[in-house]
Amino acid sequence: MAIKVGIVDTTFARVDMASAAIKKLNELTSKIEIIRYTVPGMKDLPVACKKLMDERGCEITMALGMPGGKDKDKVCAHEASQGLMVAQLLTNKHIIEVFVHEDEAKDGKELDWLAKKRAEEHAENVYYILFKPEFLQKNAGKGLRQGFEDAGAAKK
Amino acid sequence: MAIKVGIVDTTFARVDMASAAIKKLNELTSKIEIIRYTVPGMKDLPVACKKLMDERGCEITMALGMPGGKDKDKVCAHEASQGLMVAQLLTNKHIIEVFVHEDEAKDGKELDWLAKKRAEEHAENVYYILFKPEFLQKNAGKGLRQGFEDAGAAKK
Amino acid sequence: MAIKVGIVDTTFARVDMASAAIKKLNELTSKIEIIRYTVPGMKDLPVACKKLMDERGCEITMALGMPGGKDKDKVCAHEASQGLMVAQLLTNKHIIEVFVHEDEAKDGKELDWLAKKRAEEHAENVYYILFKPEFLQKNAGKGLRQGFEDAGAAKK
Amino acid sequence: MAIKVGIVDTTFARVDMASAAIKKLNELTSKIEIIRYTVPGMKDLPVACKKLMDERGCEITMALGMPGGKDKDKVCAHEASQGLMVAQLLTNKHIIEVFVHEDEAKDGKELDWLAKKRAEEHAENVYYILFKPEFLQKNAGKGLRQGFEDAGAAKK
Amino acid sequence: MAIKVGIVDTTFARVDMASAAIKKLNELTSKIEIIRYTVPGMKDLPVACKKLMDERGCEITMALGMPGGKDKDKVCAHEASQGLMVAQLLTNKHIIEVFVHEDEAKDGKELDWLAKKRAEEHAENVYYILFKPEFLQKNAGKGLRQGFEDAGAAKK
Repeated sequence: MAIKVGIVDTTFARVDMASAAIKKLNELTSKIEIIRYTVPGMKDLPVACKKLMDERGCEITMALGMPGGKDKDKVCAHEASQGLMVAQLLTNKHIIEVFVHEDEAKDGKELDWLAKKRAEEHAENVYYILFKPEFLQKNAGKGLRQGFEDAGAAKK
Repeated sequence: MAIKVGIVDTTFARVDMASAAIKKLNELTSKIEIIRYTVPGMKDLPVACKKLMDERGCEITMALGMPGGKDKDKVCAHEASQGLMVAQLLTNKHIIEVFVHEDEAKDGKELDWLAKKRAEEHAENVYYILFKPEFLQKNAGKGLRQGFEDAGAAKK
Repeated sequence: MAIKVGIVDTTFARVDMASAAIKKLNELTSKIEIIRYTVPGMKDLPVACKKLMDERGCEITMALGMPGGKDKDKVCAHEASQGLMVAQLLTNKHIIEVFVHEDEAKDGKELDWLAKKRAEEHAENVYYILFKPEFLQKNAGKGLRQGFEDAGAAKK
Repeated sequence: MAIKVGIVDTTFARVDMASAAIKKLNELTSKIEIIRYTVPGMKDLPVACKKLMDERGCEITMALGMPGGKDKDKVCAHEASQGLMVAQLLTNKHIIEVFVHEDEAKDGKELDWLAKKRAEEHAENVYYILFKPEFLQKNAGKGLRQGFEDAGAAKK
Repeated sequence: MAIKVGIVDTTFARVDMASAAIKKLNELTSKIEIIRYTVPGMKDLPVACKKLMDERGCEITMALGMPGGKDKDKVCAHEASQGLMVAQLLTNKHIIEVFVHEDEAKDGKELDWLAKKRAEEHAENVYYILFKPEFLQKNAGKGLRQGFEDAGAAKK
């Protein structure tokens, strides 16, 4: 029986990160079934993820969001992150948070590239958590990053 | 049987956002029953929403608030938002937060317009969540906003 | 049978806000029974309120506190507010937070006046929540304030 | 049967506040039994307090900590305080937080004096909560402080 | 039967702190069994720790993370810490947080040294909590630090 993976995203974000993540997950494995759930904004993500896990049997969920560049947006992102944290602790299941801040990219084109790339690389993390935990352990402390380049180990 | 929708607002706000939201919801559908609950301030919203969902059978709630422009008001808004987050996670139901910060508008007239507009557009989101989730999914990553203009997709 | 109302205050505060609130409540109605509980500081308020509601049958509680003017005091007030929020969500009962920041008033005399006035006006809110919810609804969006003057509606 | 009082402190703190608090409590009453539990740092205090109350029968606990003067330390103190808040709400028991910030004192000698003094005065609060709640009520709004001088009432 | 100790670390960190902690724990005692779990980033630590305690029988867990130097990273670390706090309170078990901020060290080499040293010294704390609580009590208020030098007692 396929393992259910939830993908929750927003109409607020300016890039369709969910499609990128879903495409990558389907390339990596056929042993999962994806359930997608789109909500208006970032602060709607935590309960949406929790509902997918409590009510629809998802084992793990990705929460895809794109905070704006203003101070108020940073506070919203913080509140959403805290909610995702509590949702995980109440379900004992991972929610992989994939947030791309609008001000991380220099223009719309780079934002589009960055958001999709980060969504894909975190989709790989979902795959490793579910099916290859030994890959993560082998890379412990290696300074891996999602989106931009890896930072690498501190001591070369 | 009608789906119950909670509308919680405050005497602190300077615009009657609830009436705007209720009018819009009734225009969109006759399949809901609205329960309104007015509390003194923003920080009273979370438990009021939770009571409507736990004790009066609401499936979803709108929390309408208007933080002032001072630093202290920002902290209050943050605390209220955190409460709304936890309330959602404890009930597995959505609370659509509609906060309009006093300093988002240049004067009282714009504030009145903005608050009602945002309340209406979030009322539409409540409608989509309940009855047309496919509309939200079709607009995932499209940069939708409530109140002021949409930001649009990052890549044209 | 009388409805039990909890009044929790502190020895840290520099004004006896509880007496002002209790006097006002007793003027407004004879249908309540007040249980008072004094704790050392603001951060002791949340569990005290929760105990009054869980263990002593209070339907609603007022939490009266007076944060000092320093940054550290602001953080304490924030922590206390978050606790009051969680206490409400765990009990499904309102806690009306009445905090007066020392730096809201220009001197001790005004602080004394402001703290008592705010406590009284929030006591009225407790009364409306319990007995006249329609009064609050009628004043939704009217910009009511407790202590200093009302802000009024945004659009005259 | 003696009432159990938990005293939790850290190896991170630079003053033995626990001994001062225990000495004071034993001077005030013989009706308590003290259980002491030392943890490495401030952020280990909340679960330690909760364990003493859930697993070892303590009715109330003192949490003694000493945050350093750096920004990072302030954040740790905030996190610890939030944890103490939640621990109280989950147990319905008081945890008296006694934090002394390193930068409250001008040198090591004053820090030692302040930390012990505050621990003692909060030990008195524990005693009042358990055995003389009427003392606290009589001093409501009197501007009491622990450590440095009392602020006093706002209106002389 | 051996006591199970969880060690949770990340691929985001730039130093393999887990191996240092595990080596130290195995030098100190043979009465434990270590379960290691590597996750992508800091914010995945809390639920991973909770899963080890709830689902795999760990009595205590170490959470090893390395926040970057940017403001956004500080917020992530704060969110992760809050999650670790709640995870402890929901399980009544200690999670020893070992965070090394990238900007604590002047270069990669020092960062490598600091991270391993702090991981080892917190591994000792895990050992003391489990097997020698009297050692911690003897050092209460002694200004112990993990990584850099001890601060020492305030009063010489």
